[in-house]
Amino acid sequence: MKKQYPLEGLRVLDLSRVLAGPYCTMMLGDLGAEIIKIEAPGVGDDARAFGPFVGEESAYFMSLNRNKKSLTLNLKNEDGKEIFKQLVRQADVVVENYRPGTMEKLGLGYDLLAALNPRLIYTAISGFGNTGPYRRKAAYDVVVQGMGGIMSITGFPDGLPTRVGASIGDINAALFGTIGLLAALNRRNITGLGQMVDVAMLDCQVAMLENAITRYEVTGDVPKRLGNRHPSITPFTAVAAMDGHMVLAIGNDHLWGQFCTLVNRPDLVTDPLYRNNRARTENWTTLEPLLEVIFRQRTIAEWIAALESIGVPCGPINTIDKVLQDRQVLARNMIEEAVHPLAGKMRMAGSPIKLSDAPELVVRAPSPTLGQHGAEILAELLGLDAAAIRILQEKGAI
Amino acid sequence: MKKQYPLEGLRVLDLSRVLAGPYCTMMLGDLGAEIIKIEAPGVGDDARAFGPFVGEESAYFMSLNRNKKSLTLNLKNEDGKEIFKQLVRQADVVVENYRPGTMEKLGLGYDLLAALNPRLIYTAISGFGNTGPYRRKAAYDVVVQGMGGIMSITGFPDGLPTRVGASIGDINAALFGTIGLLAALNRRNITGLGQMVDVAMLDCQVAMLENAITRYEVTGDVPKRLGNRHPSITPFTAVAAMDGHMVLAIGNDHLWGQFCTLVNRPDLVTDPLYRNNRARTENWTTLEPLLEVIFRQRTIAEWIAALESIGVPCGPINTIDKVLQDRQVLARNMIEEAVHPLAGKMRMAGSPIKLSDAPELVVRAPSPTLGQHGAEILAELLGLDAAAIRILQEKGAI
Repeated sequence: MKKQYPLEGLRVLDLSRVLAGPYCTMMLGDLGAEIIKIEAPGVGDDARAFGPFVGEESAYFMSLNRNKKSLTLNLKNEDGKEIFKQLVRQADVVVENYRPGTMEKLGLGYDLLAALNPRLIYTAISGFGNTGPYRRKAAYDVVVQGMGGIMSITGFPDGLPTRVGASIGDINAALFGTIGLLAALNRRNITGLGQMVDVAMLDCQVAMLENAITRYEVTGDVPKRLGNRHPSITPFTAVAAMDGHMVLAIGNDHLWGQFCTLVNRPDLVTDPLYRNNRARTENWTTLEPLLEVIFRQRTIAEWIAALESIGVPCGPINTIDKVLQDRQVLARNMIEEAVHPLAGKMRMAGSPIKLSDAPELVVRAPSPTLGQHGAEILAELLGLDAAAIRILQEKGAI
Repeated sequence: MKKQYPLEGLRVLDLSRVLAGPYCTMMLGDLGAEIIKIEAPGVGDDARAFGPFVGEESAYFMSLNRNKKSLTLNLKNEDGKEIFKQLVRQADVVVENYRPGTMEKLGLGYDLLAALNPRLIYTAISGFGNTGPYRRKAAYDVVVQGMGGIMSITGFPDGLPTRVGASIGDINAALFGTIGLLAALNRRNITGLGQMVDVAMLDCQVAMLENAITRYEVTGDVPKRLGNRHPSITPFTAVAAMDGHMVLAIGNDHLWGQFCTLVNRPDLVTDPLYRNNRARTENWTTLEPLLEVIFRQRTIAEWIAALESIGVPCGPINTIDKVLQDRQVLARNMIEEAVHPLAGKMRMAGSPIKLSDAPELVVRAPSPTLGQHGAEILAELLGLDAAAIRILQEKGAI
């Protein structure tokens, strides 16, 4: 049997813009769903205006909107609304990332859409969610990274709270939103009914705090910034080799013993200050300078070879250019190329979900130009001919 | 109809330890799946030995293993293997996060298990994945954060590469693994067949680099650390108010105009250095000190009130204690309490997936003690009585 993508046959109406919503539908598209990206006529997704550009095309937009079709639709226009409702009747999923209340104001709220299509799964991703005192507020990535706690524990003890350098406020909301959507899809296979998935960027930040909440609960000490080290595993950090920084994790006492032998410091194996993980963690202030002297003596490449020979997980700290050249990253098809009709070739991250029963590569089509698939979608799904489409254009609906 | 969790009826055998695997099965359990956590007799999940502790119980383990049942099983013992195979016949999903090759060495590789149960969905989460030159290497969170590029773009321009303060190397692999598993489940609803989901922590780091890859592709400049600011939206950063740092995002020129009026600097609206987003981003070196002077004049609370009145998304930089008190976080049930029979009450993050057709709270049971549900599971699923179980114990199988 020919391998197929796992979400083939799933039709998604995507009203979302910029990042969290488009990242969610990108994953769905990568997994084989049909993504109909519905954009405002004339302007489209705000991200189409975000640099950097290749010719007239936003590279940022291109990297988030592969495997999608574009249909322009004016949701403030009565004919536009009507077309959207007709499409909803034939769709499985709606994804939107408006501020809560926006869809209701348009007369297209979940309750109404669910009445049109009880099988519909409706995923809303917003800054603060559809309930609670902040529900009407807007958020951007840096706002939820600040409010959600991650900035307070990222960075160095003597430095400032630090934003994670990728927009995990958006991206993790996209990931949790996709999980909710797929779980609801599974439920629909049993009940025949869809439901609403409400995901807040702030909630997702809280969900990924991991051991920080636990440590606070148990000790009452507010977790602090620890630089590159782990709160309870030592050494598990970045270190400075002769030619730059690298990372390593000596996760247990056995590996610590191996390491001490490697660096000719058998005394450290039995030293009460460092002999077990707990002692090493408690005595980091004296262990750190000691390790500094040791690591400065070899290059990164030498250390990686030596540490790997004794089974210590370690690696370089790659800049983005190096990531794109990494043998493993390339072997896993994590860098794929899309060929855009106007902008030409561009590399982008592939999907990290590798399935034994799906085709290997996920980038099947480049990002669409604005409205590229409009006529095709309106003809195929709604049976509209060229004359009907022209009338809709004149009315400002599409 | 009574609301049900969307994954009710899904049976998951969980062989995973510490973080990525357990976080994946925690999400599945939160969504209603039955999680049978299979642990080595005597010791169990390594995380049971990780601090901080409440009495004898690891709070870290408790925070990741709610809603799971524990069964001890020695997978190196022939009787233990046989029981595992019998359970596989009655399961929907296996989740493991061993180093690739481990399950094959145990004689329990995917191909063999799939032959026992063609409906089985098998999710493997590992450092580098099941293919490629690094497939046999182990990784920890800090190693993939280093190799995957995120550390190179997190932190300050004059500072060091910086580890994200939560283990997103593990957590994001758990999220992508869960998405793959649920997509495969959807596929199984059509074909009747399961498949293998292979997720690598390193791949997931690459997938979340977002615009960094695109910027490098288009400009050829290796993305650098930018502190708290955004590469292409300005101001979108942390600023120092009178009493500490806070975050804000002035996402467009209209809001910039509002802001300039608010702070009595109408000159900045038309100043060619700052009049539009592109100019502000290019002239950050002069804009930053100018904003510093402005923000120092009011407290965080005053700024938040003032900025919200003109629609600028903003907020405090919360430490973990403040996150746990936040009105919105509490209103969204993002902090739930588990009552452990030995350790008592402990608060932990709830699930950020809010579903209209599922019960509101997700923490239904505290983390299990080692082997707590063994007899129950062996009796219910395999029909073993107390005598049979005693024999298995004597043989060292459970």
